[in-house]
Amino acid sequence: MLKELWENVQKQKPLIHCITNYVTVNDVANVVLACGGSPIMADDVQEAVEITSICGGLYINIGTLNERTISSMLLAGKAASRMGHPIVLDPVGAGASALRTETANKLLQEMRVKVIRGNSSEIKTLAMGVGKTKGVDADAADRITAETMDEMVGLAKNLAEKTGAIVVITGITDIIANSGQAYLVHNGHSRMSQITGSGCMLTALLTACVTANQEQPMEAALTAVCAMGLCGQQAADKTGEQGGNATFRNHLIDCLSVLTGEQLEGGAHYELY
Amino acid sequence: MLKELWENVQKQKPLIHCITNYVTVNDVANVVLACGGSPIMADDVQEAVEITSICGGLYINIGTLNERTISSMLLAGKAASRMGHPIVLDPVGAGASALRTETANKLLQEMRVKVIRGNSSEIKTLAMGVGKTKGVDADAADRITAETMDEMVGLAKNLAEKTGAIVVITGITDIIANSGQAYLVHNGHSRMSQITGSGCMLTALLTACVTANQEQPMEAALTAVCAMGLCGQQAADKTGEQGGNATFRNHLIDCLSVLTGEQLEGGAHYELY
Amino acid sequence: MLKELWENVQKQKPLIHCITNYVTVNDVANVVLACGGSPIMADDVQEAVEITSICGGLYINIGTLNERTISSMLLAGKAASRMGHPIVLDPVGAGASALRTETANKLLQEMRVKVIRGNSSEIKTLAMGVGKTKGVDADAADRITAETMDEMVGLAKNLAEKTGAIVVITGITDIIANSGQAYLVHNGHSRMSQITGSGCMLTALLTACVTANQEQPMEAALTAVCAMGLCGQQAADKTGEQGGNATFRNHLIDCLSVLTGEQLEGGAHYELY
Repeated sequence: MLKELWENVQKQKPLIHCITNYVTVNDVANVVLACGGSPIMADDVQEAVEITSICGGLYINIGTLNERTISSMLLAGKAASRMGHPIVLDPVGAGASALRTETANKLLQEMRVKVIRGNSSEIKTLAMGVGKTKGVDADAADRITAETMDEMVGLAKNLAEKTGAIVVITGITDIIANSGQAYLVHNGHSRMSQITGSGCMLTALLTACVTANQEQPMEAALTAVCAMGLCGQQAADKTGEQGGNATFRNHLIDCLSVLTGEQLEGGAHYELY
Repeated sequence: MLKELWENVQKQKPLIHCITNYVTVNDVANVVLACGGSPIMADDVQEAVEITSICGGLYINIGTLNERTISSMLLAGKAASRMGHPIVLDPVGAGASALRTETANKLLQEMRVKVIRGNSSEIKTLAMGVGKTKGVDADAADRITAETMDEMVGLAKNLAEKTGAIVVITGITDIIANSGQAYLVHNGHSRMSQITGSGCMLTALLTACVTANQEQPMEAALTAVCAMGLCGQQAADKTGEQGGNATFRNHLIDCLSVLTGEQLEGGAHYELY
Repeated sequence: MLKELWENVQKQKPLIHCITNYVTVNDVANVVLACGGSPIMADDVQEAVEITSICGGLYINIGTLNERTISSMLLAGKAASRMGHPIVLDPVGAGASALRTETANKLLQEMRVKVIRGNSSEIKTLAMGVGKTKGVDADAADRITAETMDEMVGLAKNLAEKTGAIVVITGITDIIANSGQAYLVHNGHSRMSQITGSGCMLTALLTACVTANQEQPMEAALTAVCAMGLCGQQAADKTGEQGGNATFRNHLIDCLSVLTGEQLEGGAHYELY
């Protein structure tokens, strides 16, 4: 199944409108290209709606949000909702500042978000309405472990129920949930948290996969999460323990750009929870 | 000839004022450095004129334009025109939104642009006054082929005539035209379109080459286009078919940073059309 | 000594609030991660104070300053001063425009900066109150040589005296000075000036080191400068003379991410001046 969903991205070459942070924007663009999509970054209010209208999907990331770009996110998101385009949200740092928490909540209220992707602290903040995250990384207290799995899956399902979105929590184990069911993904590698952008890249991949597979959003999300995790493992293997972070980052993008549907099908490691 | 023009960049070390997008800005800076120039990114209205005045050339790229940076582009461009500095324009996404099309047109009206570099859809939009581009990539319908070559060269010459600028259209074959003549460049590689920034990097290279060779702008543009295309070929060779996109990108910048005048002279593949 | 100071960064994992330029921001984030810290980029006035309050140190870089981000720098810097967080300033392009010179001076007046890191032209501008820099690179006239060493160390000490900050001037030899004493660092490699971001990355490293070692700021600054220079040498060795700039950049970040305290202790080359 993952094979077909992955190949659909290359077949459909979805055009993705990205309103994202300036830290990892280059990686985001390269990941959309690597999986077969086409990115366009446009964050001015004067063109946000028009650009969204020529695209297939909308990627919103609040990593370096400001008053100007928040307005564009709202305009683009409302337009995308009207047009039925999938919207994927990365609530970077929700819980780290009131501006981030409130903006993420406002985006969820004013548009129909298809997928939310965050770390456990960010998702906890959105699910509980309040929270405290250590910057843009998950708090140790919010780590996904065997002991916290039930709670974390519950949080994801609650947020999915509340918003109508599929909720993806990334960590040692990744969780993908709608209000009714949840997948766990065991792909991935700890090195992914030692470079900037792994999360943003996955959210970009999610946008491309969900846009190219609109009838099967849960499975499309699963495809993206498995692909990213598998490429993280492959990249860590290629880098080796002695290798450095820049090499790992390059391998990660390399692997995404050459990953075949067969390899993904063979290497994906997930279960229904 | 290309040898001398290429070496002039290293000799003159032109200082290039860049007002560009935040997606590929790091690549743009590294490419200006790789060819021997020195970049300075400055997009605030309070310093745009002053920074332009200490530089030799001005690079304007509308990839992530906004109201604030458009004002800076206009101020810097008018100042550069008065001072006789070469201005090179990359009209990213012209045709994808009214804001982009109108901004590109306004920039062309209010300053003396020396070189315009775009894909076929962007240049078509500027030449015809209207257009529709698939985001930031060229429409399949606008592909440069043997059949469309006459039309594309005609468009380039028309836009050159209308604006006084040299017009560079990049695609499978690249076109460099002023109102009277046109070169075709057969260097390049399809992988260049699979990473973000190839176009922006070429436009940066054009700015450095034209700034260091102001008496021969057509030949300087030819030098930059051949250098970029040749490095694309070299990088594709080094990457191999199994290699990934990040490796290709690194090789591309590597090749630009070590390309000698002799290698360029030997590898350039162009003709007068 | 350097060994312990370097390892303290990995132990303490300082959270660093970065308000920086969009050219090298990705490198800055990756360098903070590479040395063991955790970066958060946040430049909106609505969250600048709140984000600073959850962080341990503040990194301010004026490389692509604008009216909006200058306000955030001032707010964050005043808050960090009140909270006693180390502030490290990179006055990119001071001397290249009045906006940059005045902003750097204003930042120094309105907050307690712990470390200033610039090239010789930038520091000269701040020490003398006026200056003229060639864009973002040091003027040839300001090069640090045996002949100019006394003058340069004097400038650094003067600026340190005037501001209460430790002053780091980077060049062929690096100078680290407070009002009373100065170190010279002989690590480093000329290739570091051929890529964008070496300076910004060092300033990020300084922020992480000083934040994790607040009792010994001079020694922490020395640690960061030696680490960056040593990794520059290692990266140049790995790249080889035939290797290109992108390879060098990747090796530089790789080396920073795997540098051990022992290697730093063994490879650091500095003297009290």
